[in-house]
Amino acid sequence: MALPICSMALPIRILGIDPGLRRTGWGVIVVEGNRMTFAASGTVVSDNRLPLSDRLRQLHDGLQEVVGQQAPHEAAVELTFVNKDAGATLKLGQARGIALLVPALNGLDVAEYAPNLVKKTVVGTGHAEKDQIRMMVKVLMPKATFNSDDAADALAIAICHAQHRVTPAAARIAEKLAR
Amino acid sequence: MALPICSMALPIRILGIDPGLRRTGWGVIVVEGNRMTFAASGTVVSDNRLPLSDRLRQLHDGLQEVVGQQAPHEAAVELTFVNKDAGATLKLGQARGIALLVPALNGLDVAEYAPNLVKKTVVGTGHAEKDQIRMMVKVLMPKATFNSDDAADALAIAICHAQHRVTPAAARIAEKLAR
Repeated sequence: MALPICSMALPIRILGIDPGLRRTGWGVIVVEGNRMTFAASGTVVSDNRLPLSDRLRQLHDGLQEVVGQQAPHEAAVELTFVNKDAGATLKLGQARGIALLVPALNGLDVAEYAPNLVKKTVVGTGHAEKDQIRMMVKVLMPKATFNSDDAADALAIAICHAQHRVTPAAARIAEKLAR
Repeated sequence: MALPICSMALPIRILGIDPGLRRTGWGVIVVEGNRMTFAASGTVVSDNRLPLSDRLRQLHDGLQEVVGQQAPHEAAVELTFVNKDAGATLKLGQARGIALLVPALNGLDVAEYAPNLVKKTVVGTGHAEKDQIRMMVKVLMPKATFNSDDAADALAIAICHAQHRVTPAAARIAEKLAR
């Protein structure tokens, strides 16, 4: 009897991050086969009275603590919405640099997803409002709690990664087919 | 006899950084009273075949090594020129986040200077070309070597900080006057 490919799959802890200079949301979910459960979420805040370099250090230290405590296996960060305000884009870019760096410093792969794909995956449409994202996160994981919209978005990003990630089994199949 | 305020000043090592995702230039100079000497310079390169998070880790690791080896006391980073290409601004923002973070992680203050001020300080005009910056860095510090325009720019940023930094003595005077 052939065993289904996923039967040996261990629980995978996924860290989602919604970066922002003032507030960076994070959320951790556990994926085991087809089951998805809430682990933790929160918001790392930087003090806007401090110099930029110190604010980035606060984001780094906060995310480093999250990775240390939550021990995720994989990470996902929202692809930044590039808008017309160059100053805002630059600020977001700086915070986003830290959000991508910290998981990488801890040896994690970091996937990136466009906001539209995150919304489409979680809500079913690419043009969902923040309320709908919060509601659907609660529907998908009733035990989920979050202290900010950014934390809810971070959980949505983690859910998106859970749906779209390439599993090691799928990667092995793709590799065989490519030979 | 009153001692001049600066007589006790120890040599200060200044790290200048010109951030970029592909190439981040760095340069260290030593300031002792009115004397300014070249210490080292170089370029940290990221591999554009790697995922963004790994490229940012390469910049982090490279700058971390520079700070460890060069033991600077203060750092200065060029204020990014925000242009009309939002994608380029975002990329630069991410690299700039790392350039600001690494000195802060090592307990250094990080000053920021607009490109025009750097050019005006080093060349005498805010609209200098890259050639003029390279040339003036060599005039000011004949022993300076650099392996890229980015490294030369980083030395120019360090020179700018040497001219504009608020010394501890000046800070004490300003504090007294403010009382």
